[in-house]
Amino acid sequence: MEIVSQNVERWNRVEISLNGPQVGNPFLEVSLEADFTFKQREISVRGFYDGNGVYKIRFMPDEPGQWSFMTRSNQGELDNLKGNFTCVEASGTNHGPVRVSNETHFAFEDGKPFYPFGTTSYVWNHQSEELQKETILTLNESPFNKIRMCVFPKYYEYNTAEPALYPFVGEQKKLYSGTFDFTDWMVKESGFDFERFNPQFFQKLEQQIDILQKLGIEVDLILFHPYDHWGFASMGKENDLRYLKYIIARLGSFRNIWWSMANEYDLMDLAQQKKKDAWDELIQCVVDEDSYQHPISIHNWHNPPVHAVNNSHWYDHTKENISHVSIQHDNLFFVPKWHETYKKPILIDECRYEGNINNGWGNMNGKKMVQQFWEGVCRGAYVTHGETYLNENNIVWWSHGGKLIGESPERIRFLRKLIEEGGPKRLSPLGAESSHWEVAAGISDDSYVLIYFGDSQPIFKVFEFLPERAEFQGDLIDTWNMTITPLEKAVTNQTVIELPGQPYMALRLIRK
Amino acid sequence: MEIVSQNVERWNRVEISLNGPQVGNPFLEVSLEADFTFKQREISVRGFYDGNGVYKIRFMPDEPGQWSFMTRSNQGELDNLKGNFTCVEASGTNHGPVRVSNETHFAFEDGKPFYPFGTTSYVWNHQSEELQKETILTLNESPFNKIRMCVFPKYYEYNTAEPALYPFVGEQKKLYSGTFDFTDWMVKESGFDFERFNPQFFQKLEQQIDILQKLGIEVDLILFHPYDHWGFASMGKENDLRYLKYIIARLGSFRNIWWSMANEYDLMDLAQQKKKDAWDELIQCVVDEDSYQHPISIHNWHNPPVHAVNNSHWYDHTKENISHVSIQHDNLFFVPKWHETYKKPILIDECRYEGNINNGWGNMNGKKMVQQFWEGVCRGAYVTHGETYLNENNIVWWSHGGKLIGESPERIRFLRKLIEEGGPKRLSPLGAESSHWEVAAGISDDSYVLIYFGDSQPIFKVFEFLPERAEFQGDLIDTWNMTITPLEKAVTNQTVIELPGQPYMALRLIRK
Repeated sequence: MEIVSQNVERWNRVEISLNGPQVGNPFLEVSLEADFTFKQREISVRGFYDGNGVYKIRFMPDEPGQWSFMTRSNQGELDNLKGNFTCVEASGTNHGPVRVSNETHFAFEDGKPFYPFGTTSYVWNHQSEELQKETILTLNESPFNKIRMCVFPKYYEYNTAEPALYPFVGEQKKLYSGTFDFTDWMVKESGFDFERFNPQFFQKLEQQIDILQKLGIEVDLILFHPYDHWGFASMGKENDLRYLKYIIARLGSFRNIWWSMANEYDLMDLAQQKKKDAWDELIQCVVDEDSYQHPISIHNWHNPPVHAVNNSHWYDHTKENISHVSIQHDNLFFVPKWHETYKKPILIDECRYEGNINNGWGNMNGKKMVQQFWEGVCRGAYVTHGETYLNENNIVWWSHGGKLIGESPERIRFLRKLIEEGGPKRLSPLGAESSHWEVAAGISDDSYVLIYFGDSQPIFKVFEFLPERAEFQGDLIDTWNMTITPLEKAVTNQTVIELPGQPYMALRLIRK
Repeated sequence: MEIVSQNVERWNRVEISLNGPQVGNPFLEVSLEADFTFKQREISVRGFYDGNGVYKIRFMPDEPGQWSFMTRSNQGELDNLKGNFTCVEASGTNHGPVRVSNETHFAFEDGKPFYPFGTTSYVWNHQSEELQKETILTLNESPFNKIRMCVFPKYYEYNTAEPALYPFVGEQKKLYSGTFDFTDWMVKESGFDFERFNPQFFQKLEQQIDILQKLGIEVDLILFHPYDHWGFASMGKENDLRYLKYIIARLGSFRNIWWSMANEYDLMDLAQQKKKDAWDELIQCVVDEDSYQHPISIHNWHNPPVHAVNNSHWYDHTKENISHVSIQHDNLFFVPKWHETYKKPILIDECRYEGNINNGWGNMNGKKMVQQFWEGVCRGAYVTHGETYLNENNIVWWSHGGKLIGESPERIRFLRKLIEEGGPKRLSPLGAESSHWEVAAGISDDSYVLIYFGDSQPIFKVFEFLPERAEFQGDLIDTWNMTITPLEKAVTNQTVIELPGQPYMALRLIRK
């Protein structure tokens, strides 16, 4: 038995390596768990087979002090093994896993607020080593502290190359028709053995997630998605559950993990890959297996246009297993409604991407991407970035990573800095005004107000919706040119505030 | 008896002047009608008292040939008077009154399409003579062929001056509290005698409407509105009905008249001026009195935000007395839904104004105003302009007229020209794509397609929603810089169309 670290930092990972049987199919035939004990508390986790006769148990301790553990297995050599380790205080940028905080916001477990400013690069982890390195460098320089990415490779427009590694033993059988019409995506005969995981695949994924942790990036890991031609989207319940147990055994102890059950789960239903009623059980499995209660969500495809503002195609995000609402929608006008409906953090994880491609979801201009961020944040939600500029090599950030060339990231950095500096912000929509006409306004703890005007251009405003008898210090913010200009006069709910009559302005008001 | 013209053009006005009693209250005590006969047809109209013992009957003949008439009155000297006149063919710009055509569009009675490109100047007609002249000059140079304007003067922000003329005998009694809060608008004690009209007031209004007709401008005349401190908004049913009968007797024969029952009828309910259930009877009165079936609508205030996308505050525009839907809403995404619900022409008569004032409805930038026009028109609706730039004299186009200084009118002229040239356009939304993501697309008669991209910036597009096996000649349109560039290749539903990757682009496709 090898315990990787005898002195582990709170919320870091303990890994126990054991040697065990290689015969038969260890993924199916060997059970392995461990119970970790701290004072009166006991936390059980599942171990996993990592290939070559090596079994592992990973654990994330959440309290400093002396921990002990004992294994359980149907194999004598893995059963009843005991050990202990010391957990020491967290240091540096280690603030623990992210939790829901104040109903519609997030904080790390140590209490430090976490404001998601995420991006999307679905399968950067399946690209060439060279491109992966470039992506890492880009992320390191970027303003993003969260990334949406998939476990499984992606087959779709601009995504037809095969990955270097597959999650299961086997090989791609044959391309089906090759169209990108979802009626054609159901793989009836897979070339993969869903009962045999490929440990190398997961080891690689773990390295990538660890690198992202070093960059301070939370990983919103997409467990299923419909853009498939291998059969990973339609493995059936038994294989799905085994896959979930395996990946949670491997990744649950990574403190920067979030579970995104699916990208576009409703498209998987239309493509006959996975019925809508399959998800409750899969979600329950994740919640049961994850001893650490990482954030968990499920993302829609259907962006209800005109005829269905009731979002009837969405998963019911009010269910208690769902920690936050992961939305695809391009109209951030509805944020206060979603708050009211769900009473959970709202992440608009797709609201169209800055780019110039054919697809409607991928040709928004940079100004509008920045507008989406401001509108969402001012109304108390969080918005996720994506970029879809075509280049000569068809390397598109949204899927492959690479370089960011858009105009929005620098403005998103500016907004993130505004939100992160000073005390915690727990913005919630400020009155009916916040979702009407031109104003997106939010207030935090009666003391911090952010008001955004988008493409409106008032030369003056009076904000009668501010708290009565409160006096604020104001700053005029040019969200596009990224300047902050203090207002000369204090602001109350009666003050006539002079404004420049230009679009993309905002006001920050801090209570005196 | 004097017949103003013995040879009247089709859809022009015949006016018969009669002398009658001046004693008592002629407005209450004298009844006067006339039956106009053409071959087997008989059309009855109401006459009206024009002051100084003069009674008038006006009539708009709609068929060339010999017409005769006979009066009816409870006064012997006005009763049983007979005459006739010749109606000759229309000439010049006289195409008759506007009618609904092809369910969701308009045409003049002679069949020439009418595409409303309207503006809003609520009470330009109540401003100084000098300012009125300036407004007329501006309208003459403007791209607008329709105007929304009020009969009654307006009391509101930027509108506190008393008008030169009042519609009734009497005088403004006293200012009430003077706030602009609608809970305070109900005038309980008016200084006006609602049983005695002021003919001079209406004569002036008629001159203004005639001038607008000469400029080719349809008048969407607002019969009631809530912005009142005289009591005109809360006269009670009997007075309202008498007023409607009087104004229709005077103006029904003006071929460029449209009836807008109210601006913001639901605000009149909230202000306790006129209950929502009062309108059915008032609308029925207009329909009964108007022998010419001018377009008739009723305009909402409540622009349902987040929580009420069902428009429950709107008048039920499906009622058959309503010819078209006059909407206040800032999101033109919903046009296809409104088409489906109402099956009538959709006029977005307020979608925020280009300007820079405090009020959210009046500080949109010019680019967004132009965007609203393109989005509405491409989806088969019509959009109404307004301008609210403040100047040193607080003369704001939206209410007072004067000069237009905004960036949108020239771009609206450009769009109007595109729509008016060539064959009739009866655009209707083209597929689900037309109200999703970035595209606003409409098609007319399978042969003319207009597609607008707003602030999106694709570098190429394929329009699979185009009719199959149809070949189009395409033009790239820069809606902001007002350029038209023919595409080199013909366009089908498979063509990859290269685009400049810039916002505010559109495509026009004309079937080969």
